[in-house]
Amino acid sequence: MHGAGDVRIETVPDARLIERTDALVVTTRACICGSDLWPYRSMEPSETGRRMGHEFIGVVEAVGSEVRTVKPGDVVIAPFVWSDGTCVFCREGLQTSCLHGGRWGADGVDGGQGEAVRVPQADGTLVVLPVGRDDSRMPSLLTLSDVMATGYHAAVSARVRPGSAVAVVGDGAVDLCGVIAAKRLGAERIILLGRRPDCVALAKEFGATDIVKERGEAAVGRVRELTNGLGAHSVLECVGFGESTRTAIRIARPGGVVGRVGLPQEESIPDALPTLFNNVTISGGVAPARAYIEELLPEILEGRIEPGRVFDRVIGLDDLPDGYRAMNEREAIKVLIEF
Amino acid sequence: MHGAGDVRIETVPDARLIERTDALVVTTRACICGSDLWPYRSMEPSETGRRMGHEFIGVVEAVGSEVRTVKPGDVVIAPFVWSDGTCVFCREGLQTSCLHGGRWGADGVDGGQGEAVRVPQADGTLVVLPVGRDDSRMPSLLTLSDVMATGYHAAVSARVRPGSAVAVVGDGAVDLCGVIAAKRLGAERIILLGRRPDCVALAKEFGATDIVKERGEAAVGRVRELTNGLGAHSVLECVGFGESTRTAIRIARPGGVVGRVGLPQEESIPDALPTLFNNVTISGGVAPARAYIEELLPEILEGRIEPGRVFDRVIGLDDLPDGYRAMNEREAIKVLIEF
Repeated sequence: MHGAGDVRIETVPDARLIERTDALVVTTRACICGSDLWPYRSMEPSETGRRMGHEFIGVVEAVGSEVRTVKPGDVVIAPFVWSDGTCVFCREGLQTSCLHGGRWGADGVDGGQGEAVRVPQADGTLVVLPVGRDDSRMPSLLTLSDVMATGYHAAVSARVRPGSAVAVVGDGAVDLCGVIAAKRLGAERIILLGRRPDCVALAKEFGATDIVKERGEAAVGRVRELTNGLGAHSVLECVGFGESTRTAIRIARPGGVVGRVGLPQEESIPDALPTLFNNVTISGGVAPARAYIEELLPEILEGRIEPGRVFDRVIGLDDLPDGYRAMNEREAIKVLIEF
Repeated sequence: MHGAGDVRIETVPDARLIERTDALVVTTRACICGSDLWPYRSMEPSETGRRMGHEFIGVVEAVGSEVRTVKPGDVVIAPFVWSDGTCVFCREGLQTSCLHGGRWGADGVDGGQGEAVRVPQADGTLVVLPVGRDDSRMPSLLTLSDVMATGYHAAVSARVRPGSAVAVVGDGAVDLCGVIAAKRLGAERIILLGRRPDCVALAKEFGATDIVKERGEAAVGRVRELTNGLGAHSVLECVGFGESTRTAIRIARPGGVVGRVGLPQEESIPDALPTLFNNVTISGGVAPARAYIEELLPEILEGRIEPGRVFDRVIGLDDLPDGYRAMNEREAIKVLIEF
């Protein structure tokens, strides 16, 4: 990406092994993330540009001498940050805080929206998928890289439990995955706050029991009505705007939890007084996708969840600029790239 | 209180039973809360004034016809809000959100810093103390009304566990109770951020292992040093200033929890981005003291904790104005009133 709205397909030096802990992965599928749209909307023009993409599946081409858990030919998935798998935080399942990890597309590491990627800390980062490279479940498997893991993290952070009343603030791909996650964790009521017709329809199929199209004050009132005046036990906030955060805090039931995974547009958490008077916990953050991949893999392989349905457009690499445009204009919910 | 700095002892109509669920309690001990200092510093002048006090112990004088659990002659303690004990939130242990509860000194209910109090919802509110009215443990028992319950709520909300590294941001009476709570919950390291000599000395006796006198950036660095560069698993924020909240968020370890019980001076939670990048949870709020009284009572009766030591001044009712002054000027940590 060379600036706002300026996505280019360029030839760059071949990805190659550098460290002994690296793997070289030839990408087979990747996708565009809602967070990729932030620079798409606001990035300053840049001569050198920025490598994009942090969600991908591919086939291992080569591995460094210290790599033990993946080998050439393996079909692998990468979570949206790389991590060593051995530090104190990785062992606690918080690989996003890995002491020796990092991000894709930065500091000499390739982005995922390219034909090949050098994967640092391959043993800690990659998970081998027990399927062929063109398995029909690939779209769902790809969501474990970020979007499904993030929706799941929102639900886990918001402590969704069997019988919970859950509210999901937003109607993007992460929110839809939040609905899947809430359902899987046993929520009895799943209220989606959104109005985008394609997403609303999919949310219902995923298990949303109620749709609240109102916003602001009216949305707060509507959620209260739907929850006997008490509010939702768990609120999933996957948007990150001040307005959505305000709503999330106010629709939470006293003693409830807001699971917050949206990349925030403000440094502060606004109008947070109700969290104190109502003992509402604010939890969550960047999702340790790596921790959830193994947990959710059987769910997808055995067909119990189908988060891949959030992809409503499949493109080739050359169409990537148009894919960004389509997602930005809400023409597509989420775009999958096949290599 | 008739305005900032204007505390008066006045004769008011006798407290009396109104509802059939009321008890009439003759106060034997009460105290001044840190939160009472907010109006002491900033209240607009008021002709009618405001009844003060929300922490008290007393002897039941009379009960309404529907009261079942307390009887005349019982020595009882009241938590800092009254609650019915039967609503959905009370049953969940969140009596501060009771659907039929309320606050002392408001809406026709007496304050605790007076000779007698009408206690609404007596069955839900009061706990009978199995001791005589002048038992030597009275100061410690009185802390269950608020200050010890609040410190404990901070520690429970911050998920202090055996082996935890805990930081307590502040050196007031609640913070000292937070140290006691952290110790009781098995914290291995308890770092107090404060510099008030009397409090620091007491904190060490209560179990603080380290004192950080630095503030702001330097305090953050010092706590990091003391925790192998990682931060504290649990941070107790009992102050409520923007500055203390900022510090609390930044000294938390990734994946850690800030237990927040300070009455905040700002509506927003400032500079909260690190909570997302580090998956730091913000939890807590007004403490459901009623839920903790029964849990902590044996600890006090059997001498395992002595939170009453936070009282470093005992006064009579007539000295109340000077008690406020002394606490406000930090001449006293916490003031107990004997009737």
